[in-house]
Amino acid sequence: MKVAVLGFGTVGVGVYEMLGQAEGLEQGTVLVRAGKNDAAFKRTSIEDIISDPEIWAVAEVMGGIEPAFSYASAVLKAGKHFVTSNKALVAEKGLELSKLAYENNAGFMFSAACGGAVPILHNLSLAVESDKILSISGILNGTTNYILDSMQRLGLDYEEALKDAQRLGYAEADPAADVSGMDALRKIMLACAVAYNMLPTEGLLNEGIENITAEDVKHFMVRGYTCRLMVRGGRTDESVYAYVEPVLFRAGAPECSVMQNNNMACYEGENSGRISIIGQGAGRYPTASAVLRDLSGILSGRKYMLRENCRAVKAENDKFKQLYYVRLPEAMASLIPAESVDVENKTARLITKPLSVQEMHSKAAEIRKNGGKIFFAEIGG
Amino acid sequence: MKVAVLGFGTVGVGVYEMLGQAEGLEQGTVLVRAGKNDAAFKRTSIEDIISDPEIWAVAEVMGGIEPAFSYASAVLKAGKHFVTSNKALVAEKGLELSKLAYENNAGFMFSAACGGAVPILHNLSLAVESDKILSISGILNGTTNYILDSMQRLGLDYEEALKDAQRLGYAEADPAADVSGMDALRKIMLACAVAYNMLPTEGLLNEGIENITAEDVKHFMVRGYTCRLMVRGGRTDESVYAYVEPVLFRAGAPECSVMQNNNMACYEGENSGRISIIGQGAGRYPTASAVLRDLSGILSGRKYMLRENCRAVKAENDKFKQLYYVRLPEAMASLIPAESVDVENKTARLITKPLSVQEMHSKAAEIRKNGGKIFFAEIGG
Repeated sequence: MKVAVLGFGTVGVGVYEMLGQAEGLEQGTVLVRAGKNDAAFKRTSIEDIISDPEIWAVAEVMGGIEPAFSYASAVLKAGKHFVTSNKALVAEKGLELSKLAYENNAGFMFSAACGGAVPILHNLSLAVESDKILSISGILNGTTNYILDSMQRLGLDYEEALKDAQRLGYAEADPAADVSGMDALRKIMLACAVAYNMLPTEGLLNEGIENITAEDVKHFMVRGYTCRLMVRGGRTDESVYAYVEPVLFRAGAPECSVMQNNNMACYEGENSGRISIIGQGAGRYPTASAVLRDLSGILSGRKYMLRENCRAVKAENDKFKQLYYVRLPEAMASLIPAESVDVENKTARLITKPLSVQEMHSKAAEIRKNGGKIFFAEIGG
Repeated sequence: MKVAVLGFGTVGVGVYEMLGQAEGLEQGTVLVRAGKNDAAFKRTSIEDIISDPEIWAVAEVMGGIEPAFSYASAVLKAGKHFVTSNKALVAEKGLELSKLAYENNAGFMFSAACGGAVPILHNLSLAVESDKILSISGILNGTTNYILDSMQRLGLDYEEALKDAQRLGYAEADPAADVSGMDALRKIMLACAVAYNMLPTEGLLNEGIENITAEDVKHFMVRGYTCRLMVRGGRTDESVYAYVEPVLFRAGAPECSVMQNNNMACYEGENSGRISIIGQGAGRYPTASAVLRDLSGILSGRKYMLRENCRAVKAENDKFKQLYYVRLPEAMASLIPAESVDVENKTARLITKPLSVQEMHSKAAEIRKNGGKIFFAEIGG
């Protein structure tokens, strides 16, 4: 079956190469920008791909909402299967695309958009048919894991670690989407949609790692903690919770052994128990391998990861309380309800009383509004 | 679709319960021993199940080769799908059953036989369609992991740790299949069959943990090593390698954070990179969840894990060399080519020169034949 590829950047080249070796799949045409069609298999018009009856499926690896969304809609309306690695597209337009896919009996899969080579969506999608997913968590952003791991293992400060990551190609020139937690947030949105048939589109919270310092990391290490940027999702009575924030883990926790730019995705099934999957979350071939896995899946009959009746919901991040580590100016420490406070050089480090995610993120926003520098992290397992 | 269950022990009860809640699947009848048919859904004759046109698939969770093999053959000949958690059955009779399955257009899946809730076979089976599997490894026996973990974390000796495991239901009254590595060996046989289309049935090697002592563990710990019983498999030019042996890992290796009776299964894909999956390898609901996952898979069109042309091969365990830690009587130390030797109280502890798995296992057999007590472990990553 011939597969067209939209985009011929890092991942696109990988997908095209892998199509040349996959069972039952074949290299189709590749959509490139005008002026880049320097080979017979390249096209510059999406129409050429949509109208080609030999094209059985289309893999989109361009990124961005437009023109990806217009292309995806046209592909699905033409009854061709659509596979994507584009998390922004699925987070924003996934329900519309899913509707089009079901209407036109075309497959719609997006494994590569959450976890890269880590087959979390694929396994969640199969598990929900016979098991109840109690919760989802994970390290789903390799850039921030690389930075946190370097800070801890090499003693670098945040800026140095970020520059290292950029030099090695693990972080983009503009790292904002990664370090703010936005990239990871989109992934937990998709995982919730697959696991709970609800795509959280409002009420989401993300705290990134831009505010962590070498001092914070030293402080964690002497106490036996390792900091990781975690996604968390799960059911509430009416909706789901879904958020991203730094979490401190005790030595020996599996999260601590996720090194460099690796990802780890976990779910807790009522029957299966906790399943954790570790691997590369980005990169040419790891991401391409996830795109190919979806195509093989469609070929063997599994066409969807989202249900036909999946709906958008507002996330509820105020249902559970937990403890946080907070570092902020001494003068503002009284704004946070604390179990214990340590002050040194006008900096307060405190352990909070139990707070909901919503409460903690609101407090931090309030402090920042007043010009205070704050870093916080959930105290995990 | 109605699913019959053969066997109503620990796992059988779990499968039956989960069938009551799974999408698209329904509880069928359950085969029990004569005299145990104390409920309307129970049957004592396999004929009643095979001849029932309402039964779409059969899940076998009895264990043992016979009568499981006769039952499985009859089920497949009747064109019904067959799913099993029985690793001995698949290791010994898998190719025959696979032939019957293809001949009768019936599905044949056995996820639960390797890794329990850990979906390694399922993910390997999908990955091989577009990726090349470079190697497989893992901790695939929860009993031995529990024993090794207890010895290290609680300082127990082998007998104490085994008794604890038995008391908690993690080890059977006769633990031989687990502690000898035979159980784990069957699992790597199955994983090789799925990943390489070759089922190794000869030339296999397994060294278990019966010979480890509290002294060995102390010795590892002061040097920063953790011992795990590992399976390893991969391609050679003509065949595959497949073996089980204790391996020492440096602190921080992901294997060290696999605690208690958990399993970890890994594969290295040429494109995906290394994927590791951690979870419960045994127990009622974890194992049942794997059986259900196979049934959901068949329902959506993936009926096979083995190819139609999968063949039996002799494993080649003499192709790669590695270093080993060996503890044996001082008087026999000269039988092992060593890089370094430490002697204390007539016991020698040595690091070998590079040896193939075949060479190391042969040396150990020779020493045991001469009445020497020996423990050895590969020096891993």
